[in-house]
Amino acid sequence: MTKEIEYFFKPKSMAIVGASESLKSYGARYIQAQLDFGYKGRLYAVNHNGEEVLGFRIYRSVLDIPDDIELAFICVPARFTPGILRDCLNKNIKAAIVFTAGFSEAGEEGRNMEKELLSIAEQGVRIMGPNCFGPYCPKGGITFVSGGGFSKQSGETALIAQSGQLSEGIIGRSFGEGIRYSKVASYGNACNINEADLLEYLMQDEDTRVFTSYLEGVRDGRRFFEIARKNAGKKPIIIWKVGMTRTGAAAAASHTGSLAGGISAWDAFFRQTHAVKAGSLEEMVDANVGFACLPGGCGRRVTLVSGGGAGGVIGADACESVGMQMPPLSSETEKQLRELLPATGTSIKNPIDIGNPHPPLKLFQSILEAVAASDQTDIIVIRRIFFSLKLSAIFSGTTAPSPEEQQALLDIPVNIKNMFNKPVVIILPEEFTGVEDIELEAERRKIRDFFFANKIPVYPNEQRAFKALFNIAEFREAGGLETVSDKDKDIEAGRGRAILSEIIETTSNPVLDEIQCKEIMKEYGIDVTEPVLAKSGKEAIKAAASMGYPVVMKIVSPQVTHKSDIGGVKVGLKDKNNVTKAYKEILDAVKEKAADAIIEGVSIQRMAAPGLELVIGMTKDPQFGPMLMFGLGGTMIEVLKDVAFRIVPLTTMDAREMIRQVKAYPLLKGYRGQPQVDIEYLEDLLLKISKMIEENPEIKEMDINPVIAYEKGAVAVDARIILEEDVI
Amino acid sequence: MTKEIEYFFKPKSMAIVGASESLKSYGARYIQAQLDFGYKGRLYAVNHNGEEVLGFRIYRSVLDIPDDIELAFICVPARFTPGILRDCLNKNIKAAIVFTAGFSEAGEEGRNMEKELLSIAEQGVRIMGPNCFGPYCPKGGITFVSGGGFSKQSGETALIAQSGQLSEGIIGRSFGEGIRYSKVASYGNACNINEADLLEYLMQDEDTRVFTSYLEGVRDGRRFFEIARKNAGKKPIIIWKVGMTRTGAAAAASHTGSLAGGISAWDAFFRQTHAVKAGSLEEMVDANVGFACLPGGCGRRVTLVSGGGAGGVIGADACESVGMQMPPLSSETEKQLRELLPATGTSIKNPIDIGNPHPPLKLFQSILEAVAASDQTDIIVIRRIFFSLKLSAIFSGTTAPSPEEQQALLDIPVNIKNMFNKPVVIILPEEFTGVEDIELEAERRKIRDFFFANKIPVYPNEQRAFKALFNIAEFREAGGLETVSDKDKDIEAGRGRAILSEIIETTSNPVLDEIQCKEIMKEYGIDVTEPVLAKSGKEAIKAAASMGYPVVMKIVSPQVTHKSDIGGVKVGLKDKNNVTKAYKEILDAVKEKAADAIIEGVSIQRMAAPGLELVIGMTKDPQFGPMLMFGLGGTMIEVLKDVAFRIVPLTTMDAREMIRQVKAYPLLKGYRGQPQVDIEYLEDLLLKISKMIEENPEIKEMDINPVIAYEKGAVAVDARIILEEDVI
Repeated sequence: MTKEIEYFFKPKSMAIVGASESLKSYGARYIQAQLDFGYKGRLYAVNHNGEEVLGFRIYRSVLDIPDDIELAFICVPARFTPGILRDCLNKNIKAAIVFTAGFSEAGEEGRNMEKELLSIAEQGVRIMGPNCFGPYCPKGGITFVSGGGFSKQSGETALIAQSGQLSEGIIGRSFGEGIRYSKVASYGNACNINEADLLEYLMQDEDTRVFTSYLEGVRDGRRFFEIARKNAGKKPIIIWKVGMTRTGAAAAASHTGSLAGGISAWDAFFRQTHAVKAGSLEEMVDANVGFACLPGGCGRRVTLVSGGGAGGVIGADACESVGMQMPPLSSETEKQLRELLPATGTSIKNPIDIGNPHPPLKLFQSILEAVAASDQTDIIVIRRIFFSLKLSAIFSGTTAPSPEEQQALLDIPVNIKNMFNKPVVIILPEEFTGVEDIELEAERRKIRDFFFANKIPVYPNEQRAFKALFNIAEFREAGGLETVSDKDKDIEAGRGRAILSEIIETTSNPVLDEIQCKEIMKEYGIDVTEPVLAKSGKEAIKAAASMGYPVVMKIVSPQVTHKSDIGGVKVGLKDKNNVTKAYKEILDAVKEKAADAIIEGVSIQRMAAPGLELVIGMTKDPQFGPMLMFGLGGTMIEVLKDVAFRIVPLTTMDAREMIRQVKAYPLLKGYRGQPQVDIEYLEDLLLKISKMIEENPEIKEMDINPVIAYEKGAVAVDARIILEEDVI
Repeated sequence: MTKEIEYFFKPKSMAIVGASESLKSYGARYIQAQLDFGYKGRLYAVNHNGEEVLGFRIYRSVLDIPDDIELAFICVPARFTPGILRDCLNKNIKAAIVFTAGFSEAGEEGRNMEKELLSIAEQGVRIMGPNCFGPYCPKGGITFVSGGGFSKQSGETALIAQSGQLSEGIIGRSFGEGIRYSKVASYGNACNINEADLLEYLMQDEDTRVFTSYLEGVRDGRRFFEIARKNAGKKPIIIWKVGMTRTGAAAAASHTGSLAGGISAWDAFFRQTHAVKAGSLEEMVDANVGFACLPGGCGRRVTLVSGGGAGGVIGADACESVGMQMPPLSSETEKQLRELLPATGTSIKNPIDIGNPHPPLKLFQSILEAVAASDQTDIIVIRRIFFSLKLSAIFSGTTAPSPEEQQALLDIPVNIKNMFNKPVVIILPEEFTGVEDIELEAERRKIRDFFFANKIPVYPNEQRAFKALFNIAEFREAGGLETVSDKDKDIEAGRGRAILSEIIETTSNPVLDEIQCKEIMKEYGIDVTEPVLAKSGKEAIKAAASMGYPVVMKIVSPQVTHKSDIGGVKVGLKDKNNVTKAYKEILDAVKEKAADAIIEGVSIQRMAAPGLELVIGMTKDPQFGPMLMFGLGGTMIEVLKDVAFRIVPLTTMDAREMIRQVKAYPLLKGYRGQPQVDIEYLEDLLLKISKMIEENPEIKEMDINPVIAYEKGAVAVDARIILEEDVI
């Protein structure tokens, strides 16, 4: 697979299908762009008419080309593309970019043509598109139709985006900030090669160190998720996700399904993969700049050095609001700084105010040395130092430094970074933004480039700087992330799968009854209050005696889902007489209230001891598939939607974190003298349920409600499983 | 008061104290700045030595000046300032800027000097500062020491900021965006003139239409709050608040006090005043630009017109995530657009994709006309139209428009805005940010200025545009905000105040008992379960009979606060025998468990019927004073901190909104078949409690827990009041 995708980026030979004699045709423009960009391979023009374009003979068909072709670029009208693609297949071309639009994005007819393309693709030719700009790859010498002038320098960042226009826009913006690309793919409708394919390829690609993307959605969400998780902490994965679609609540039959409405599965995605979630173009570029300068990520403890007091609090606010830290100085560092700085007009705590935006060079160097030497400092952030000559001139007039002094000032952060091998970050605002101030901005960009070349990221304000640092700190912490559960091995599948298959074969009801649910659950090692089916009062007494009083009795009928509502449940039955009476009352009540219901009998189970009531459930997200839910029981939690979701399969870390994510977590720890419940057991329980869900894809929704948790262990008291309609 | 503050901005005569012969002295530099800026009044230099500076005779003292002086600028060392200020007082100078630093910000000695300044000020001279830059006011011809080159154009924006450096920084940044100022005050330590004074002055100031501020804290929070609330919807109040300090939880004796920890009183401030909360310099400037162009605010319903498809979803995301709306097009508008636009390559829904970043002029005009004519459109936001010639040239090469066509394109949004009198907003990104792209940015700024001059705000991206629009939409909606409760009149103070005064005179215990609390509450019309004190079993039976069974009995002892814990409470007592037995058991239990407690007796009250349990409480914020809290009862709410706070006094709207702010609000509306509780009654109840708190400032903290709410009415079942320690 990897090899086939490689053809898109580094083709030895290309056929441009739709290259007419007119230089305005997309085909001719595409050839021109490749020539301008310096493509080194062999190019062939193909069109239904014409003799020559840009010095290339125009062939009638790819089949006529007397050479092997690795990649085709197809820009003929949509209705001709299937024929062309079939030719490509026959010519043994491995990869085709379908530039043409008017497919699934354009209605029924287009959707059908796209299906046709796909069916040809599956016979042996990979498609990027349709409706895309295709690849840009400096090493391969290949570029967009509009990209003849793009940078020929190769870099370490990859970008994927459905939209060609946005790919262009992101690249354009990033170039200015110093970013260079290994590989870019505008992949359009993704009928064949999708986000997951590209992610997988780029994670293995030796040229790529940072993955960036603009995503409106993903086709193969589950695989995309799994690849992202597997690579957490290995290569930064930056995702600018727009249109955070919510899973539909309206159609949900289960409690879990309805709670999933209003919660985005992407939230679980980002938590589980530790991918960088960028909220805007700026945030994506900022993170990318950060990773370009600090490939290994960074820690969280910032020491802020400011050339002026006001605004330290701005930095501290911005730092803490994103989840970075600004710890106090060590007494050692504080002592050193006291020796360097005057007591008035400065502030010797973190944030440090050195009292002067153009400090004497030696002093500046010494301050930064003291800060960098501290093991309380993971990162040094510098603000309000006048690295700009023009700014110094505005603010200081005659006392402004000379150009030589200014360069020496610029060198200091670089020296410190190299000496101590600690990240240094600089905040360099656009101080003035008037038409007349444009030279200030020109100088600011030069200074930014100087620092970037020295692996020091520069940001225009505190908010953007700390957000970027947070994102790269998260990446470093994701380094040790486990991608599969180490407990998976211990969980035996048992006969659960077989039981469900058997049920599916015999039932016509998509809703499993409690007895069926618990039978399956038991096989996955889940502790349940085991129900026994009684078909007479005598059987009921016998069952109760064997499990010990008190017991609970419930009607078993495929037609009765809300059992309590019609008097079909009796709890706290303490002896034989109670059971006899309850059996009769349940049958009478159901016969009266649900006359048409088929009564299979009455289930009897031991009554669970009181404890903390929890809910564990499952629902399916349209993009990512099955997701587990965890929360506490009760109306309040439901109203407050205080639940956590994770995409299946869960890792031990997922189970651990989702329990702690709910705001009601302190209640599990034992609030106000209540005992702590068995959290470790609950983590295991979530993993067992995850396993069960994974092995039984026919399950559409599930509620285990309640699970009662104790100081030791927990037990599933009631459960409901709804199957996919197409399996029964 | 207003008149005195006016002296700071428009003084007819000024004395600069500390103006030595050296041109480097702050005094001389200050004179030079005023001269450069074109100050039209009379200037006098004062210093302890020297003859002349910049052509001005140097007087030894303000007392020697043979002329009336309205304003003094004092920049002598801190220790001399009290003497100088006394001279100013004697000279009948009305206002003094104390530029000098080294006061309360610098330790004990400075704090004492500042107190001395204040005591002089109170005799008849207002102080701005110390430790400040003072005023900048183009109409008054007065500027900062560093502001000789500031714009002489007067505008409609006022700014206040403690920090001089930040005042400079904000002004500098805003100038470039087209903002001009009426009045700016860097007010330093605010020993005399503080934020509330300046806000009050600027709200009345005819030159000022928009108030902006950078605040680290406020001195007279309660008054600042009241002035802000009174002016809601009249003039925009933009506050960039940093250091969102939280009220200390550690010291709180009440439940409410401990829940206030971790919640910022500023959150309540912004909710109650509808002031614009800016999170950064950019957000403040963006809102200011918005108000400059759209003085009346704007509605929420955006129609987005985009010259390209990708990115519409970016706009929709940004729009909805801040609370603006992008409603579907009306069928009428859709029909009109279908006639104008081709079916392919465009999208005729909101956001509208017109498919082309440089559309034909006539088409562009017609599209915008159709959109503007719709009553579904409050605001038109335009994105990805190439208003830049240079950008058109880059993207379109030979098809790029001529300069004349380009100007015609720029005129269209202006025409539409004027024709339809509807806000038009343009998103104009910095497409490329490289050193070599600087001319693009220069052109972008010119285009921005053109639109700004035509009252069309321009923003660099979707996120910033929609945040700014949200802020100005909020302002418009705050227009009808009530500033005092119209129900206030109905609430009679009654004897509540007298009762508390009496208690204070006789008690030495800052914690009032339940009987005392309820006595006061009753006087404010709050329904309570009224307790009667019984000093014997017989008295208890008599009391119970008079109120009707069942009853609750509780120990009354100043030493016993956690009554239940030691067996001091008995509930659900159904008859005479129960009461007799309970009386004895309570006394026995307390005597055993709290041998030293003084027992005043046992309280008896009717037992409230079951209902929905609520908590209403009060605590004091260091800046804003008393705040009311509302929430549901129970452990879960406590763990989840699902409570709402409001600064006292509450308006009807505050009461309404705080009840609806809690996430558990659906439970009040009657969840899952439960009856709805009497929400209107609860709103009244909050207003009554607000009144009680307002009238009794000695109350430090209060818990009314629980209040039990019913379908009709609600009753306070238990209450606890803690008094300020210095009043008993």
